[in-house]
Amino acid sequence: MKLEDLKGRIRNIPDFPIKGVIFRDITTLISDPEAFKFTIDHLHDRYKDNKPDLIVGIESRGFIFGGALADRLNIGFIPARKPGKLPWKTVEESYELEYGKAALQIHSDAINKGQRILILDDLLATGGTIGATVKLVERLGGIIEEIAIIIELTFLKGRDKLQGKNIHSLVRYDSE
Amino acid sequence: MKLEDLKGRIRNIPDFPIKGVIFRDITTLISDPEAFKFTIDHLHDRYKDNKPDLIVGIESRGFIFGGALADRLNIGFIPARKPGKLPWKTVEESYELEYGKAALQIHSDAINKGQRILILDDLLATGGTIGATVKLVERLGGIIEEIAIIIELTFLKGRDKLQGKNIHSLVRYDSE
Repeated sequence: MKLEDLKGRIRNIPDFPIKGVIFRDITTLISDPEAFKFTIDHLHDRYKDNKPDLIVGIESRGFIFGGALADRLNIGFIPARKPGKLPWKTVEESYELEYGKAALQIHSDAINKGQRILILDDLLATGGTIGATVKLVERLGGIIEEIAIIIELTFLKGRDKLQGKNIHSLVRYDSE
Repeated sequence: MKLEDLKGRIRNIPDFPIKGVIFRDITTLISDPEAFKFTIDHLHDRYKDNKPDLIVGIESRGFIFGGALADRLNIGFIPARKPGKLPWKTVEESYELEYGKAALQIHSDAINKGQRILILDDLLATGGTIGATVKLVERLGGIIEEIAIIIELTFLKGRDKLQGKNIHSLVRYDSE
């Protein structure tokens, strides 16, 4: 397999969640053992020789890739979650979604000052979700080594919200 | 490490989400590389010689363990999600929660008739969530090999809702 082949394992769903949008559905990628292994192999190869201290994965699809990669690298996993889900003391950041407004939280004691963090999610679209996660990590003193995403929708220009950060995407779509 | 040692890596939070309940917080387990690896090692050892065809993991914490275990076993991962999240055709089951009512969905094409399924979640409490997942898997023709959970709250008698199924829990709490 090559990275570009992953597009053949991602299902394209027109008009979801709203008319005119093509949703890139990764459930067909993760249900395919070859494609899922290839994805985690690729990420493992990229980070194994210079491991981050922690992976911060974003609810919910980021948990699937993040759990697998944290296990492969034998490092800890920190969930960034929607408000009300984390039971301990949290920090919170609000952000604009493509289709509304939302917020994310991380446990206040999840990251120690100076720890090197890999942020991992399935998708970079407008950058709102990942931008909020960047702020949460930095408020806790974490150093963002890189932001890894499986799919980047380049036409939504999410990178503009993440200037100065290293960003690594496995596949890119340049239009709907 | 021994299985019982995992309790030392699980944070106990009194009065969350409601007064009188002790919440068993696994974020401290998954942020600890030794404890997280031990957990996935244990599950891998249990299933590696007689692999299921697919893991069905339950949103959201089941995704973290399920993604890691699917990768280790090199099998596919199927998410069971809250309504509105899955973009393709779905089957749905409602259930009673400890604190309300909810529903879960799986993509209708996620499981083929006769496939052997491991259901994985972090917690067995009253059994509502896992019971709904069992129904979804069986509606699609899947055969449930086992239900694995990290934490079982035995005093809530979730097993009563899952009679006839193999259930494997890593740690058990017999009272709040």
